[in-house]
Amino acid sequence: MREFTITVPASSANIGPGFDVLGIALSLYLTLKVTVDRDAPCAPLNCVIKATGEGCEEVPLEPETNLITRTALYVLRAHDVRMFPVGTHVHVHNDIPLGRGLGSSGAAVVAGVMLGNALGNLNLSKRRIMDFCLMIERHPDNIAASLYGGFIGSILRDLSPSEAERVEVPLAEVLPLPNQNSGGIDTGLRPPTPPVDFARSIEYRLSPNVKAVCVIPNFEVSTAKARDVLPTAYTRQDAIKNLQCLSMLIPSLGVENPDPELVFSAMQDTFHQRYRRVLVPGLADILATMSPRTNPGLLGVCLSGAGPTVLALATENFEDIAADMISEFKKNGVSCTWKLLEPATGANIDEA
Amino acid sequence: MREFTITVPASSANIGPGFDVLGIALSLYLTLKVTVDRDAPCAPLNCVIKATGEGCEEVPLEPETNLITRTALYVLRAHDVRMFPVGTHVHVHNDIPLGRGLGSSGAAVVAGVMLGNALGNLNLSKRRIMDFCLMIERHPDNIAASLYGGFIGSILRDLSPSEAERVEVPLAEVLPLPNQNSGGIDTGLRPPTPPVDFARSIEYRLSPNVKAVCVIPNFEVSTAKARDVLPTAYTRQDAIKNLQCLSMLIPSLGVENPDPELVFSAMQDTFHQRYRRVLVPGLADILATMSPRTNPGLLGVCLSGAGPTVLALATENFEDIAADMISEFKKNGVSCTWKLLEPATGANIDEA
Repeated sequence: MREFTITVPASSANIGPGFDVLGIALSLYLTLKVTVDRDAPCAPLNCVIKATGEGCEEVPLEPETNLITRTALYVLRAHDVRMFPVGTHVHVHNDIPLGRGLGSSGAAVVAGVMLGNALGNLNLSKRRIMDFCLMIERHPDNIAASLYGGFIGSILRDLSPSEAERVEVPLAEVLPLPNQNSGGIDTGLRPPTPPVDFARSIEYRLSPNVKAVCVIPNFEVSTAKARDVLPTAYTRQDAIKNLQCLSMLIPSLGVENPDPELVFSAMQDTFHQRYRRVLVPGLADILATMSPRTNPGLLGVCLSGAGPTVLALATENFEDIAADMISEFKKNGVSCTWKLLEPATGANIDEA
Repeated sequence: MREFTITVPASSANIGPGFDVLGIALSLYLTLKVTVDRDAPCAPLNCVIKATGEGCEEVPLEPETNLITRTALYVLRAHDVRMFPVGTHVHVHNDIPLGRGLGSSGAAVVAGVMLGNALGNLNLSKRRIMDFCLMIERHPDNIAASLYGGFIGSILRDLSPSEAERVEVPLAEVLPLPNQNSGGIDTGLRPPTPPVDFARSIEYRLSPNVKAVCVIPNFEVSTAKARDVLPTAYTRQDAIKNLQCLSMLIPSLGVENPDPELVFSAMQDTFHQRYRRVLVPGLADILATMSPRTNPGLLGVCLSGAGPTVLALATENFEDIAADMISEFKKNGVSCTWKLLEPATGANIDEA
């Protein structure tokens, strides 16, 4: 019998001016406890899923529809392994709230690729794992943070024409869902493999004194809807502003004791927050009223991913900062929970 | 008699994706040799200018119209010092080609503010010198590189409404040119002083192995004309592409041995080069044909400032790289000179 555990951290993307660029891994985890026991009873595709934690009532438990196992199956089949090993049991425990901008789906995709890699003994490098993840979810900022950990920047590589044909392949095309009749039956086709070095990532230094206050409203924002409110173009002034802020933010968070005024001014964004305020009542008030002057210890505030979670980077007075953010949300009729999270190391597998 | 020397390096701005953000100081200098000798003959505003080197035939030698001394006079008058000290003699020696995208005017402004600071014994910090420079030339990327040296990013601070009234004040308003009748006569008015901490700058690590191959076409491009060809807006895709490239470029140049493939892909720009190709025949061909594969040692190529100089960052084979760039220019009927420059330290004053 084989046993292993895969641990994948949550992530916050779009940090300040780093829209579609900057991510941070956060100390909230998706965990898979996997056993492979040849003596276990038969199961569809040889895989049984159990789910606990956040969203466990919502997620499908069939291996061909569950995002994690479906992703694993894609990776296996891309390597001509048609099925899970006989007697695969996956216990998914999730502490990452779904649809709140904390990278739950990115973490699921990373977990799925790592699961396929482990079950197929494929020995994929983390860079190659990244490639496979991007076939399923095209958010390198979340994926890179969950996979590599830390404070990280990412870029999608320009693809050659033949590679570009495979860009933006949704999971449904990479690994077709079974229709009513075929019910998970293997078509025998090998799904497309990703381009090599699809994305590049670089980890930045992050002051060990920085923690993340995450205030999580009690509603979901769909990433698709959050994309729809964005403009198709930015003025030159706005585009340059984000470039300038990004150039300051990356180094300013790397020093031992970040300068609050500098980080705060560098956390400004012109690319998505102003357009997403309508989706997150309270965000505008938090951005307008809170600063290092009103809240000592605060470094900067931003929408986490596509929201609705709002992330405050801070070095002290975490409870007070959270209380003020929650209060602004409350004025807008939004109730919240909050968590104090720390930058996390990347996805990990432990063989028992 | 007092004697001192002010040395200000050239600069290249708009490095790769860092439009209006990234600058590098380069080892080509504007030098002022200054003497203050009370026994010297009388002169208008107490100042005599001598010019040698690049552009010495073109630049005006009257202290109220020469950019360097006029800037110095602005700084002096902003501190209620109405005139140059009796017997001021400024020998300007310039090795920076004018109007070629190597920051000659930024260097002149930095030299001018440092000259005023020294002659008025004002003890301005470099940060305050930066503020004054930005009243005259609103290109923090060039100014910061020439002033602080190295590989540097800059951001203009959001100004308060009262400060913003003074944004974009041209020198003509800061220090009105004498009209025909007044001929340099002091109006007694104190010119506006700049906001404090107008810009923030951060110096990045730059590999000591990186040098700059500067290929300088034999024609000038006016910055105003180069601005006119730019679009007023960018697509979201282009805006994000520059952000992503910037996030890679800054750290990738900081390591001891930069990865040519990574730096090259991070040197891509969508903000200005494609629009300025029409002003710089040959640029498109250089960008399309040269890479680390065709030219070992090459890290990346970009337009320097608003051009026409093209900058190649490289670690070896400098002559070959220059020859290939010059050859592409030649095919487009453009003749060039070239220089191998190194990253330079910032502006400096030496009292004799």
